[in-house]
Amino acid sequence: MVYIQRRETFSASHRLYNAAWSDDQNEAVFGKCSNRYGHGHNFQLIVTVKGDVNPDTGFVMNLVDLKDIMHREVIEHVDHRNLNEDVPFLKGIQPSTENLAIAFWDRLAPAIAAKGAQLHSIRIIETENNFVEYFGA
Amino acid sequence: MVYIQRRETFSASHRLYNAAWSDDQNEAVFGKCSNRYGHGHNFQLIVTVKGDVNPDTGFVMNLVDLKDIMHREVIEHVDHRNLNEDVPFLKGIQPSTENLAIAFWDRLAPAIAAKGAQLHSIRIIETENNFVEYFGA
Amino acid sequence: MVYIQRRETFSASHRLYNAAWSDDQNEAVFGKCSNRYGHGHNFQLIVTVKGDVNPDTGFVMNLVDLKDIMHREVIEHVDHRNLNEDVPFLKGIQPSTENLAIAFWDRLAPAIAAKGAQLHSIRIIETENNFVEYFGA
Amino acid sequence: MVYIQRRETFSASHRLYNAAWSDDQNEAVFGKCSNRYGHGHNFQLIVTVKGDVNPDTGFVMNLVDLKDIMHREVIEHVDHRNLNEDVPFLKGIQPSTENLAIAFWDRLAPAIAAKGAQLHSIRIIETENNFVEYFGA
Amino acid sequence: MVYIQRRETFSASHRLYNAAWSDDQNEAVFGKCSNRYGHGHNFQLIVTVKGDVNPDTGFVMNLVDLKDIMHREVIEHVDHRNLNEDVPFLKGIQPSTENLAIAFWDRLAPAIAAKGAQLHSIRIIETENNFVEYFGA
Amino acid sequence: MVYIQRRETFSASHRLYNAAWSDDQNEAVFGKCSNRYGHGHNFQLIVTVKGDVNPDTGFVMNLVDLKDIMHREVIEHVDHRNLNEDVPFLKGIQPSTENLAIAFWDRLAPAIAAKGAQLHSIRIIETENNFVEYFGA
Repeated sequence: MVYIQRRETFSASHRLYNAAWSDDQNEAVFGKCSNRYGHGHNFQLIVTVKGDVNPDTGFVMNLVDLKDIMHREVIEHVDHRNLNEDVPFLKGIQPSTENLAIAFWDRLAPAIAAKGAQLHSIRIIETENNFVEYFGA
Repeated sequence: MVYIQRRETFSASHRLYNAAWSDDQNEAVFGKCSNRYGHGHNFQLIVTVKGDVNPDTGFVMNLVDLKDIMHREVIEHVDHRNLNEDVPFLKGIQPSTENLAIAFWDRLAPAIAAKGAQLHSIRIIETENNFVEYFGA
Repeated sequence: MVYIQRRETFSASHRLYNAAWSDDQNEAVFGKCSNRYGHGHNFQLIVTVKGDVNPDTGFVMNLVDLKDIMHREVIEHVDHRNLNEDVPFLKGIQPSTENLAIAFWDRLAPAIAAKGAQLHSIRIIETENNFVEYFGA
Repeated sequence: MVYIQRRETFSASHRLYNAAWSDDQNEAVFGKCSNRYGHGHNFQLIVTVKGDVNPDTGFVMNLVDLKDIMHREVIEHVDHRNLNEDVPFLKGIQPSTENLAIAFWDRLAPAIAAKGAQLHSIRIIETENNFVEYFGA
Repeated sequence: MVYIQRRETFSASHRLYNAAWSDDQNEAVFGKCSNRYGHGHNFQLIVTVKGDVNPDTGFVMNLVDLKDIMHREVIEHVDHRNLNEDVPFLKGIQPSTENLAIAFWDRLAPAIAAKGAQLHSIRIIETENNFVEYFGA
Repeated sequence: MVYIQRRETFSASHRLYNAAWSDDQNEAVFGKCSNRYGHGHNFQLIVTVKGDVNPDTGFVMNLVDLKDIMHREVIEHVDHRNLNEDVPFLKGIQPSTENLAIAFWDRLAPAIAAKGAQLHSIRIIETENNFVEYFGA
C-alpha cells in the first residue's frame, strides 16, 4: 500500500464566535479571531489517499482525478469565500480548522471511494504555525 | 551602506470593489475578489531599511526597534482585521496589495527615520504567487 | 511607481551541451548537466511588472491578465516539455537558465506592454540553490 | 523509539507511458506526462529511520551514515539522470513517484538495517503539490 | 479525534561530544558537530495534540493555550541559549535532536494533559535536511 | 547583463556584545543575543554575480565554480563554527549579520573577479524573519 498526497490552496475569510455566548465570552475564548468583520488566511489543503499501485499505470490514483475531486467538492466552494456566510455545507458549523477538516472529509471520502481509492487523511495548514490533521471518525 | 530586512505576518480579510461601479463591472474587473462577504490571506510584510553600520553595535538599526515599529504602526492595526472595515488609515482606499504597500510606507517611513535609519522598500507577499514591492514616491 | 510580481511554475527537462564541442569538452564544462538523456527541474518563473496604480482599481495591472499572458506566452510551451526538443522559440538556443530568462523576456515584454504596463524583470528559480534574474537588454 | 529523518534532493527527468498501449491511450491516462521527450522535476527524498537512542551518542543513527547510504544507494544513480533510460534498477519499471518510492525502499532498507537501524518510510516530494509516502510491503 | 499542530521556533547553539571519550573518538563520531566552541541552528518545534472537538468552540484545544505552554515549558528556556550550558533541564544530557525531543515531551505532556488534551508527538526540525519525531515512551 | 544567484547554507553560533561596554549596556542593546554562551542559526548565504552570457556555454559563470569559491572562501570557515572564536577573518569584528555580509564580500569579490565575473550582492538570511543584503562599498 502506498500513500499519495495532493496539495491545493484556497484563500478565505472566517470569524470564530458562538452565537449562544455573550460578546465578552466570545472575546475571552476566541480573542482577535472573533472580530466582527472577520479575518482571513491562505489555507493549504493536503489530501492523502492510500491504495495499491496499479501495475498498468504505476499510480495509486490518477492525480488529475484527485485534483478534479478536490476542486469540485471543496476548492470551488471555499476559495475567495467567507466561510461563515458563503458555503452551504458549512452553514451552522463553527468554521474552525478542525471543523473544516471534518466537513471536507465528508465530501471527499465518497468521491475518492467512487474512483476505487481510499481517503486516508485531510490536512489543513491555516498559517505557517497552525495545522490540523483528521483521519476520519 | 547595508540593507536589512525584517519580516512580520498578519492575517486579514478584504474585498476588492469600486463603489462607483455596477455589480457587473465589479465582477468583470475583480472577479472572485469582489465577492460580497470578502475573503482573506496570510500576508507577509517585509520591510527593508538601509544605512551605515554603527561600529559600536554592528547594526544598521536594532531589529528589536524595527520589529516594534512594524507592530505599532502596521501589524496591530491590520492583523485579524477586515481591511475594508476595521482600519482607520485605510478608510476610503481600495485595499489592493499595491495600496496597502503605499499606505504602510506612509506610516513606517517617518517612524524609521526617527530612529536615524531610512526606509528603502515595502514588500508584501499576499499569496505564494502574488507579491508587491514599493520604493516610495 | 509600484512593482507587482506573479509566480508560475513549470516542470521541464533539458540537457546542456555544445554541439560544436567534443564529448570530453562537454563533460568538462557541463558535467552531469550534459548527460545524454537529460534531467529536469521544477522551475519557478517570477515576473515583475512596474507601473502606476490605477485609481479606479488599485492595480498596476490586473493579475488575471498577467497570469494569462504568462501562460499563453511561456508556461503552455514549456510545461512538461523537453526544452531542447519541444519548444520552437528555444530552437538552437542552449537551454541554460540565463538563456531561458532572455527568451521569456522577449515574449513577455511586448504582451505586457500591450496591456499598458512595463516588464521590469524575469526571475527563474531552477533549484532551491540556483536562480537567475534578467532586467532586459 | 525515536524517528529521525534526512532529506536529500535530486533533479531528474522521466516520461510516463505504457508501451503496451496506443499513443491515444497513453495520452488519455498520462496526459502531458507522456510527452515523447520527457519532462523533469526537482525531487526531494525524505527517509525516516526509527530506533532507540544510543546513550553514548544521543543518536538513533549517525546522520552522516544515513546521508552516505542515501547517496550511494539512490542519489548517485538518479541525480541529473533520465529515470526511463539511465538507471539500471529502474529498468522496466514505470517511473511514477509511487514506483520510485518502492524501488528506493528495496535498496535503502537492507543498507540501513546493516547499520543496526530500521527504515520506517520513504517520502518523495515530486512538486510542491504532489507527494508520495511508502512504509514497506 | 482530530490532531492539531502548533509550530514555534528557537535559535540555539550546542556541541555534541561525549566527555567519557577521547578527543579523537569524539571527532570520529561527531565530526564538525563536536567543535569546541559549538555551532547553532534555527530549530523549529512542532507539537501535535489530539483530542475530540469541543462542540462549543470547534477546538481540540485553544491554540493560545498551546502556544503559552510551549513558550513557558520550552521556548523561554532554550531560545538564544547554549543547550549544553544554559538549560537546567538539559544538564547532563547530550543535546542531540533526539534527546531534545524526549526532554521536551517530558515537560509538555503533563502541561497539555492539565488542559484536558493529549500530546501526540514532538517534531523538531534542526536544519532543512534533518528532522526528528517522537511519540512518547 | 544577467544576474545569477547561488545559495549555500551554514550552521554557526555567535554572541553579540561589545567588550568596551558594561554587561548592563550589552544587555540593554543586544538583549538575549548577548547571552554569555552564545546561540546559533542556520544561515543562508545567497551570492549574486552579474555578467554577460557566454555564447558557447549559455552561462554568466559556471555555477560549479561559484559553488567552489563560496565553499573555499566562506562556508568551510564558518560552517559548524563559533563566529566569535573560530574564524580568523572575523577576529575583532562584531559578528552581526551586517558585518558578516561585508566580511564575506571582501573574500568573495576578488575570487569571483578572477573568474571573469563580477560580484553584485551578498544576501544573508539569518532566520525566517531577519535578512541582510550588501552591494559593496
